[in-house]
Amino acid sequence: MPQLSDATRGRILFGGDYNPEQWPEELWQEDVRLMKEAGVNSVTVGVFSWAKFEPTPGAREFGWLDRLMDLLHENGIGVVLATPTSSPPPWMGRLHPETLPRDADGRVEWWGGRQHFAHSSAVYRSHAAAITEDLAARYGGHPALTMWHINNEYCTYDWGDEAAAAFRRWLQDRYGTLDALNTAWGTAFWSQGYDDWEGILPPRHAHYMNNPTQVLDFKRFTSDALLECYLAERDIVARHTPHIPVTTNFMPFWQGQDGWAWAEREDIVSVDIYPDPRDPLGAQYGALIHDLTRSQARGGPWTVMEQAAGPVNWRGVNHPKPRGLNRLWSLQAVARGADAVCYFQWRQSRQGAEKFHSGMVSHAGERGRTFQEVKRIGAELALLSGKVADTRVVGADVAVLLDWNAWWASQQDGRLSCEVDHQSVVRAWHRALWEADITASFAHPEHDLSAYKLVVVPQLYLLTDRAIDNLVGYVRGGGTLVSGFLTGVADQDDRVRPGGMDERLRALFGIRTLHEWWPLDADEKVEAEGFRGTLWSEEIEAADDTYVVVPYKGGELDGFPAVLRKGRAWYLSTLPEPEALWPLLAGIAEDAGVRPPLDHLPADVEAVRRGELLFLLHHGRDTVTVPVPGRHRDLLTGEDVVDAVELGRYGVVVLEAAP
Amino acid sequence: MPQLSDATRGRILFGGDYNPEQWPEELWQEDVRLMKEAGVNSVTVGVFSWAKFEPTPGAREFGWLDRLMDLLHENGIGVVLATPTSSPPPWMGRLHPETLPRDADGRVEWWGGRQHFAHSSAVYRSHAAAITEDLAARYGGHPALTMWHINNEYCTYDWGDEAAAAFRRWLQDRYGTLDALNTAWGTAFWSQGYDDWEGILPPRHAHYMNNPTQVLDFKRFTSDALLECYLAERDIVARHTPHIPVTTNFMPFWQGQDGWAWAEREDIVSVDIYPDPRDPLGAQYGALIHDLTRSQARGGPWTVMEQAAGPVNWRGVNHPKPRGLNRLWSLQAVARGADAVCYFQWRQSRQGAEKFHSGMVSHAGERGRTFQEVKRIGAELALLSGKVADTRVVGADVAVLLDWNAWWASQQDGRLSCEVDHQSVVRAWHRALWEADITASFAHPEHDLSAYKLVVVPQLYLLTDRAIDNLVGYVRGGGTLVSGFLTGVADQDDRVRPGGMDERLRALFGIRTLHEWWPLDADEKVEAEGFRGTLWSEEIEAADDTYVVVPYKGGELDGFPAVLRKGRAWYLSTLPEPEALWPLLAGIAEDAGVRPPLDHLPADVEAVRRGELLFLLHHGRDTVTVPVPGRHRDLLTGEDVVDAVELGRYGVVVLEAAP
Amino acid sequence: MPQLSDATRGRILFGGDYNPEQWPEELWQEDVRLMKEAGVNSVTVGVFSWAKFEPTPGAREFGWLDRLMDLLHENGIGVVLATPTSSPPPWMGRLHPETLPRDADGRVEWWGGRQHFAHSSAVYRSHAAAITEDLAARYGGHPALTMWHINNEYCTYDWGDEAAAAFRRWLQDRYGTLDALNTAWGTAFWSQGYDDWEGILPPRHAHYMNNPTQVLDFKRFTSDALLECYLAERDIVARHTPHIPVTTNFMPFWQGQDGWAWAEREDIVSVDIYPDPRDPLGAQYGALIHDLTRSQARGGPWTVMEQAAGPVNWRGVNHPKPRGLNRLWSLQAVARGADAVCYFQWRQSRQGAEKFHSGMVSHAGERGRTFQEVKRIGAELALLSGKVADTRVVGADVAVLLDWNAWWASQQDGRLSCEVDHQSVVRAWHRALWEADITASFAHPEHDLSAYKLVVVPQLYLLTDRAIDNLVGYVRGGGTLVSGFLTGVADQDDRVRPGGMDERLRALFGIRTLHEWWPLDADEKVEAEGFRGTLWSEEIEAADDTYVVVPYKGGELDGFPAVLRKGRAWYLSTLPEPEALWPLLAGIAEDAGVRPPLDHLPADVEAVRRGELLFLLHHGRDTVTVPVPGRHRDLLTGEDVVDAVELGRYGVVVLEAAP
Repeated sequence: MPQLSDATRGRILFGGDYNPEQWPEELWQEDVRLMKEAGVNSVTVGVFSWAKFEPTPGAREFGWLDRLMDLLHENGIGVVLATPTSSPPPWMGRLHPETLPRDADGRVEWWGGRQHFAHSSAVYRSHAAAITEDLAARYGGHPALTMWHINNEYCTYDWGDEAAAAFRRWLQDRYGTLDALNTAWGTAFWSQGYDDWEGILPPRHAHYMNNPTQVLDFKRFTSDALLECYLAERDIVARHTPHIPVTTNFMPFWQGQDGWAWAEREDIVSVDIYPDPRDPLGAQYGALIHDLTRSQARGGPWTVMEQAAGPVNWRGVNHPKPRGLNRLWSLQAVARGADAVCYFQWRQSRQGAEKFHSGMVSHAGERGRTFQEVKRIGAELALLSGKVADTRVVGADVAVLLDWNAWWASQQDGRLSCEVDHQSVVRAWHRALWEADITASFAHPEHDLSAYKLVVVPQLYLLTDRAIDNLVGYVRGGGTLVSGFLTGVADQDDRVRPGGMDERLRALFGIRTLHEWWPLDADEKVEAEGFRGTLWSEEIEAADDTYVVVPYKGGELDGFPAVLRKGRAWYLSTLPEPEALWPLLAGIAEDAGVRPPLDHLPADVEAVRRGELLFLLHHGRDTVTVPVPGRHRDLLTGEDVVDAVELGRYGVVVLEAAP
Repeated sequence: MPQLSDATRGRILFGGDYNPEQWPEELWQEDVRLMKEAGVNSVTVGVFSWAKFEPTPGAREFGWLDRLMDLLHENGIGVVLATPTSSPPPWMGRLHPETLPRDADGRVEWWGGRQHFAHSSAVYRSHAAAITEDLAARYGGHPALTMWHINNEYCTYDWGDEAAAAFRRWLQDRYGTLDALNTAWGTAFWSQGYDDWEGILPPRHAHYMNNPTQVLDFKRFTSDALLECYLAERDIVARHTPHIPVTTNFMPFWQGQDGWAWAEREDIVSVDIYPDPRDPLGAQYGALIHDLTRSQARGGPWTVMEQAAGPVNWRGVNHPKPRGLNRLWSLQAVARGADAVCYFQWRQSRQGAEKFHSGMVSHAGERGRTFQEVKRIGAELALLSGKVADTRVVGADVAVLLDWNAWWASQQDGRLSCEVDHQSVVRAWHRALWEADITASFAHPEHDLSAYKLVVVPQLYLLTDRAIDNLVGYVRGGGTLVSGFLTGVADQDDRVRPGGMDERLRALFGIRTLHEWWPLDADEKVEAEGFRGTLWSEEIEAADDTYVVVPYKGGELDGFPAVLRKGRAWYLSTLPEPEALWPLLAGIAEDAGVRPPLDHLPADVEAVRRGELLFLLHHGRDTVTVPVPGRHRDLLTGEDVVDAVELGRYGVVVLEAAP
Repeated sequence: MPQLSDATRGRILFGGDYNPEQWPEELWQEDVRLMKEAGVNSVTVGVFSWAKFEPTPGAREFGWLDRLMDLLHENGIGVVLATPTSSPPPWMGRLHPETLPRDADGRVEWWGGRQHFAHSSAVYRSHAAAITEDLAARYGGHPALTMWHINNEYCTYDWGDEAAAAFRRWLQDRYGTLDALNTAWGTAFWSQGYDDWEGILPPRHAHYMNNPTQVLDFKRFTSDALLECYLAERDIVARHTPHIPVTTNFMPFWQGQDGWAWAEREDIVSVDIYPDPRDPLGAQYGALIHDLTRSQARGGPWTVMEQAAGPVNWRGVNHPKPRGLNRLWSLQAVARGADAVCYFQWRQSRQGAEKFHSGMVSHAGERGRTFQEVKRIGAELALLSGKVADTRVVGADVAVLLDWNAWWASQQDGRLSCEVDHQSVVRAWHRALWEADITASFAHPEHDLSAYKLVVVPQLYLLTDRAIDNLVGYVRGGGTLVSGFLTGVADQDDRVRPGGMDERLRALFGIRTLHEWWPLDADEKVEAEGFRGTLWSEEIEAADDTYVVVPYKGGELDGFPAVLRKGRAWYLSTLPEPEALWPLLAGIAEDAGVRPPLDHLPADVEAVRRGELLFLLHHGRDTVTVPVPGRHRDLLTGEDVVDAVELGRYGVVVLEAAP
């Protein structure tokens, strides 16, 4: 299987999406000049070129791409070649309306935007295969080609008739018999027993709540149907170029695709990252995406396929990146394992829906601040490349467990609290680790966890038997486990386990009876000894041999456990406020033998070790001094650092032990 | 006509919806054991069993119900048998798409949820009749059968084509000629004159506001169409079992059905009650539902068909019931006339959309707090049964007037204020009576009111001539009438009466000219002498012989009447804040000879007299002492009470005069 | 071309929409009596009479209108006769469903409301032409007829199939070739290249953002398609009555129609004005509509076709007009050039969707406050008529530039800030002029601006080359130009100009580089020397020869220009708070030789000169004294005013220099 290193060849890839079809061909030379000035060594082309390749059904217009690939190659710029299948040309919808997806209300998603493809349409798939085949045949041997990029940000749901038929086939594969499906979905409730496969639909608009297992399976199916699209194109290009790695770009921390299942099928794991520059925890959000993507890449290098050099254009108010922030966040990604730092897009568009999304070359052009900062980043990445590329992050000994099935099942209608957002809960726990200066990994609950010193479960509402046994085995094997509330509630079919929580987990944590869940209102806090909880609380009766670490104080739950512990298994029945969660978790981690990459880190300074290097990243604006015992060299400046280093606003040093 | 007493036979019914088809049959024995432990004497079965009864079109699977009914009967548990017609099996929609309702936007309401039946579909109706017929034939003679429960929470609107045709037939019945319809609807405005019955539609999505009388008639029609469904099934079961009472369960205080018209056609009036445990006025909300349902039952006993033992699962955040609250609210319903205290549902589901809706046996099982409290309630109801069942509430001498037609007409687009919510206004007035310790009844404005000492009109925007004459006659006959604003504005066709308020009412209240309505913004208050008004104010010129009880103070309405009075007829042109409304109403009530059930009640203590008994219900958490002159016995504890009784948090005593 | 003066004949028109078909014919006599009592000299009839004229397809029922026109004429009341084409009868939709519009989601807009016509439906257009022809033929010669009123508040968008076909034809006219369209729309982005005209659709619901130029062109097309409807009917009536002026009533400051393009095709410019009586800046809003409409009428007289005598019924909470406000705002319109003061509607409806919209005769009738105030206004207008009618506003030397194309293009999805609302920005700048007591005009950026002393550009995101050259030429010719942010960004196709702002404009204002736009969050302020900015800020590098009038202070933009100036060209990169904008603008205006109509005006007093008269309008509630040097006569009271006049709450004087 080809690797990312087959594309990077010892360098950090630097570049971005390049859509030259938007520009007159005479501008290409200028683009290449600026790319070289900026140290760009990789561009992604073809993402939205289907109508250019195939302006009428069956036509092929590749001449422009021939010229472009040659030009790039002549200038030493590699090409990540995309299949253009995320946005079919208008003629596809016009001639084959069944290729257009429909939403749960039956509304057609018309062309005129992007990603308007019905994933299970046979016509769409055959057209997508044909254009992929021809691209692979023509460019598979081109020396500029370094990587295949399939489709773009797979995210299109479809409730239409052809999707319904595919959903039924998927269900037949999963359940075999209607009886099994009826059992799994609990259709005895609300008179939903199916007597015929043809009666099964995607969860379309209903009078009142849809069947939750139907909704869950529809999310599983959608992820799988999109993965089928990926694999079909992957197989085509891999047949032509078995040595060229293949990827697709994930949307960051995105519900629509099962990230674990997809990553297993990719040569390279890639992600798009768009923190809000105004988010005071934007750096932590970035770190989370980095950690998750690296973990999907089994700890090895991965690629930032897209980020923004300045503002995006899809928020309500889209803020630019203040001076230095682009550099800081780019180097943060490298620190956390990225071997590619790429942007959407090279040159900011003048037309179309994304013309206010920034580019490496903004509307202000070469003289603009944006491009000046891009050039500096390119130069610094070149300095680091030799020491960084293809190395691994060190010391990420804590696993945060995440499972899309649990995420999907927990976000249904008809649950106890709409305030409990899975993503926010996971982020709260990752933030606590980040504030405790601990480098986190992510893992699936059925992964082998034995290498981790600490396993954190922010919330796994749904857990399979196998996953539960895995967790129990991990603790029995000496591991330390910390679990947040609403974990182990449901089985793989979203069937609530007797007692409201699996009995093995209750035994593990020392819970005799879970009497009631007490969700909290939006801004409500619950008092416990020493902290205040948010989002949730529980009326739990602890077992005899269990230590109530923190009881609730006052109110209906006075004296009931907020935090309880049985040996190395901890359970939190609420989410402590951030200022309480991180010290709690830091203490548990320390007991479990987990250490930060560097001691005595000032607030706002992030430290990560990758390979032989120590990255120090300053997310604040005031100058701070970081104690770094010993003698190091800063690869960015070439200067020596002895015992301490000073970091200004958004400052970064990359230290190598001095010889 | 059979009565509730034919089902209760001297007991208070205690139990809930039982959906055994969700569980393996071996669990039924366990269920029955726990039911008996909890004093359950009635369960409702079959509500969502259509797909179980008729898994394929025309099939019949009754064996499981045969076994269940026998089992229940053997254990002394009566059965409320439901027709399963609220949720047709998936094959119905698949084979007969016209049985699926459509919303005003044309969206289909697909199966996969519940209540997805097009009420006017001939196919649906014939299938519903067939399954009802077979159920009645098979179980009409079963000794466990105590009551029929038709459908469930009728609430499905339909804007589709078959509903449109039925709407036209309904309109032909109502108006006879197109001319009459055009006149009633005021179609001369906006060029809406109909030249053909076929041109008339339900009020589907329009460019701008729909014709309001069309909307009003569509609501009337929908209530009637659903009632036709009810009556069709009622007639079938009544033919088989003329001695068994028939009911359907209302949603509480629900706009969709004309509660008066429906109640007249029911043997038993039943309601589902779901106050929010976090609502500080949840007890008052419960009392309102109790009073309304009792009044629909013509003052006699009625049934709580559903309530929740703990949380529901359809609010944003669903809170459990704190310890004692389930008992308190259950006994409150009995105090206010209920002869049945039932739950949705017996055993909390493990699957399906309502698995987080609590049950009498929660996920925590037998040991859980929920079931322990349920057992206590069952035991206490058994203690009360002999003294309470089939008795009537005493002293409910005040009638609050409510009419669905007025409600519907007042909630249209294009009115002066979206802040005036009919339900909230009615609740504000009921709350004032509740805070004044006055037991309220409800009545329709055309009812005979002569037995009431005081009649309160929170708001009857629409009043028929007959209703107006009834109110005028009531005051002429010596009654005291208090009316809130926006009353008597429109006639039965939502036609504004000359002067903006019917002239008979203006004469009754002493209003010369109603110059302008002055609605208030969301949080705006208007100052009057001695209180502040909310929601609304009016520029009224009082007639000469009228007493301005309270004038507005300052602002544009300075000096105009906020409260005026002509003899025993009072009119409030604003809604006083709660702390002002109840003393005002208490004073008027006292003058009218209305007395609370007990004097000197502490705040938070509710007193109701039913039959020979005095119920005292404490809705607060601090212990209070209630003076109760004389010697009584508390039926719950068997202890004597002399001159006073102490009530703890959520405490209840049921007192009988000591012999 | 006929003029407004052909209809007014030396008078101010006073009256309103009259819908006699809502009332029994015997009430018409009463209506006419009250009209005469109120000084009504003009009523608009027929607006919603199509179903009355043509109750079945092809029928004609004109007898009632014959009688009405005769009655009005006998009583000296002129008739503005409307074509009834905004609301087709129900039979039209029933027999021709393709005449019903569809929204972007595909939802039909059914009959039962109003304005449910598909503008490009051939069937609709032919029916509309036929009824217009017959009306013109029958009433063209009637002596009561003074004006034609085509349709009503054109505002219906349509995304349906027939509109799609018309859109394609419009695009073929605009672009000629598909290549030109593909270039203009930038379809190279997102694979949107069209290979066939048939592939082009209105911007229907898409998976993600629609192509912005497609959206822009669809707005242009919709305005043009509606204008075609107008012109088709206009041509018919003009053929019959070349001497009778034709108009249609605009919705105020409304995005749907290009007000400049429409006004050019109208004999008379008419507008409907509905300020919220609770809006503390309602008078300024009114003034803006007046100034805009007058400017559309090339500075000459215009008509208030609709206003409300009291509340409207389409806001959330609809407040009545306090005593005196109707008079104040009516006279304000006259001051700013109106020669007609009309209402929707004469008699408040008892039925239909607008029965809570006030009328000149309210539900309270003749005795009600509303009618009493209407009578006073009618009497006062009669006093003014001879001196006012057909005169022009004096001294409106400042042009505020407005262009619908810029408005449309700036309000797309995918822009940097959803907080920047074009209408609010324009209103902010007009408000500053209003607060500086400067009478404003409006102009299109391609108009001849040479007559203006000052030109203000609140925001013209899109500017054609011709418009840019016009602005540059204006400044070169000695004019003073002040521009707000986000001006000159895009060309006519919404293509961002290199540098993010046209280079001619950058040269004009002295901007070297526009590095980044920094939009502000909803309530965020940016500090500058001496004021705080709202909505927006920019990272601008000033050219050498440019004066940084106000720099930003602190934050990321510290020292960058907030306000810069090159000669007489000013640029503001933020929107100063209101208390800073008006003095800034007043200073610039004074330097440019612009003077208020009167010096030393108290706050809340508006002064406008029209013809020989000086109007003073007091928008406050406390009595103020206004210095007015010299001797004048107040036309309303006939009293002399020497050197000063006192104005009470909502007071108005109309002063003529004493001889």
